[in-house]
Amino acid sequence: MSEEERRTLEVRRSILEKNDRLAERNRGFFEARGVLVLNVLSSPGSGKTTFISETVRALQNRLKTAVIVGDLATDNDAQRLRASGSPVVQITTGTVCHLEAEMVSRALKQLDLQGVDLLIIENVGNLVCPASYDLGEAVRVVLLSVTEGEDKPLKYPPMFQSANMVVVSKMDLAKACDYDRTTVMANIRRLAPKAQVFEVSSKTGDGMNAWIDFLIKEHQALKQLQPAI
Amino acid sequence: MSEEERRTLEVRRSILEKNDRLAERNRGFFEARGVLVLNVLSSPGSGKTTFISETVRALQNRLKTAVIVGDLATDNDAQRLRASGSPVVQITTGTVCHLEAEMVSRALKQLDLQGVDLLIIENVGNLVCPASYDLGEAVRVVLLSVTEGEDKPLKYPPMFQSANMVVVSKMDLAKACDYDRTTVMANIRRLAPKAQVFEVSSKTGDGMNAWIDFLIKEHQALKQLQPAI
Repeated sequence: MSEEERRTLEVRRSILEKNDRLAERNRGFFEARGVLVLNVLSSPGSGKTTFISETVRALQNRLKTAVIVGDLATDNDAQRLRASGSPVVQITTGTVCHLEAEMVSRALKQLDLQGVDLLIIENVGNLVCPASYDLGEAVRVVLLSVTEGEDKPLKYPPMFQSANMVVVSKMDLAKACDYDRTTVMANIRRLAPKAQVFEVSSKTGDGMNAWIDFLIKEHQALKQLQPAI
Repeated sequence: MSEEERRTLEVRRSILEKNDRLAERNRGFFEARGVLVLNVLSSPGSGKTTFISETVRALQNRLKTAVIVGDLATDNDAQRLRASGSPVVQITTGTVCHLEAEMVSRALKQLDLQGVDLLIIENVGNLVCPASYDLGEAVRVVLLSVTEGEDKPLKYPPMFQSANMVVVSKMDLAKACDYDRTTVMANIRRLAPKAQVFEVSSKTGDGMNAWIDFLIKEHQALKQLQPAI
């Protein structure tokens, strides 16, 4: 290994270690507040924003939500998400290809978490780098759209290995894309054997009920863990 | 800026500078051999592999092709590409989110370039990081599938700003996805005003002729620049 490679590895390790510490601090903070936190990850264009908007809409009068959204540029997603009725904080990363725990911690200062049950963090669209950065979330949700092909879990192992949940999105396009359910499920199982899997269409609403029920149950479980101070 | 941030930036700059030098060496090598080189980039699942396979098939008996393909894991794409009849070298990057000039240079040692007119490099599926790494290509081709939504160019500026060509892929799904052509074209124009734009369906073949004609003309232009030694 050259001196340059050694230095590069050391800097990378130090960045990830620092991120892991700050992520645990976020986790403690969320736990103390009784907020269920999702980190939502996928390729660009897998439908994260629409999925989150529809989730927020479906939870109205049931759970109080807030959203943090990361993008290299533009506040398009933040605007779309605000229209769903949730408070939204935008993180613009410039050229940075992922969110980091520190960015989330800074964004929290702009967000009133009073009474919030569920915080959804929409990560930068990228199926590689964000996998390495814990944000302090309780549940890591990886979206995979039916248009992307069956082998994505095999080709992007770190992302799928780190997933607690996998959401197969854009099911309304399944037929047009010759979606091969058996192969997709087998590939998800190989990389993420313990992850729960949902198939949804944010457009038609198919499959959303099961997802919403899951969130409500997770939140209830979290509340029961809360000490009554 | 903290000492850690300063060190991180310095390591990153040094990596990119080294890559830029090696990319120029690749460029010189390709020029000397009279090989037209494409660097093909997109999100995961935008259809790079199918697009390249169909390109190779359409060029049979017209241009001699070779392919280098990068993936974090699996040689699925390499296998699919070999079936199209082209020699293929696989680069497996592990956790690295992009190809680098040095990886391409090493892969070239496994490839017989004798008589090859066109080398197509399929990059790792990632709309962020590969934008910063010149591989020594003549033409940078960015794919954008109609399923990904209209605003991708605005949300991933470095990638689209660096494109010489933008290929809108999966046009067979345009109707099912409510593809908004006017907005997509306007957004591409904003980021990549000089890029040529093609709309294709690798599945039906629509739009492929114009793309193939472009490649043949580019290759002829390159040949005319070659000194007759």
